[in-house]
Amino acid sequence: MSYYRHHIFFCLNDRPNGEACCARQGAQQAFDHCKSRVKAEGLAGPGGVRVNKAGCLDRCAGAPVAVVYPEGTWYTFVDPADIDEIVESHLKQGQPVERLLLAADVGR
Amino acid sequence: MSYYRHHIFFCLNDRPNGEACCARQGAQQAFDHCKSRVKAEGLAGPGGVRVNKAGCLDRCAGAPVAVVYPEGTWYTFVDPADIDEIVESHLKQGQPVERLLLAADVGR
Repeated sequence: MSYYRHHIFFCLNDRPNGEACCARQGAQQAFDHCKSRVKAEGLAGPGGVRVNKAGCLDRCAGAPVAVVYPEGTWYTFVDPADIDEIVESHLKQGQPVERLLLAADVGR
Repeated sequence: MSYYRHHIFFCLNDRPNGEACCARQGAQQAFDHCKSRVKAEGLAGPGGVRVNKAGCLDRCAGAPVAVVYPEGTWYTFVDPADIDEIVESHLKQGQPVERLLLAADVGR
């Protein structure tokens, strides 16, 4: 059994050279929003949900991105409503949000 | 199938108030060493291994810690030789390193 039921990592990497990167696509805001929603829903902690910052996840072409483990579900998102849906559907009820899935061939 | 066969996250969090934290237990050095070993072994990339920085993983009492997904294997380590063993045994051959496993009850 996994220490966290769902462990979500947000890429917060910043590329100062103008290349695609999550930091310039609202990643910090999405992270903060997710962290606060998970806490408000009482999901945080061992056996529950952990929301983490991460460095570059190397799938920059889909920025901003996040990954949920242990299931290995990758997301791309636009606004706080997308994050709300990931929290409510996936992190709370275990149902991935199909419309926000990152395509399998998206890389750097 | 997972985008990365093994995705390892190192906590690099720094707590300036003197509490236990990974940054003050050699985490950055371990991360750098792991990243460089994985690259040297030709393991890096989609379908292979990804070595990532992460914020606080909230298991600070076992600092420094790292977690490998999708299998959800947690490690604590001391020196570069420990990292070499994780790379060779777990990341290359898929065999977890029993002696470095973080005890299940270790939390913040």
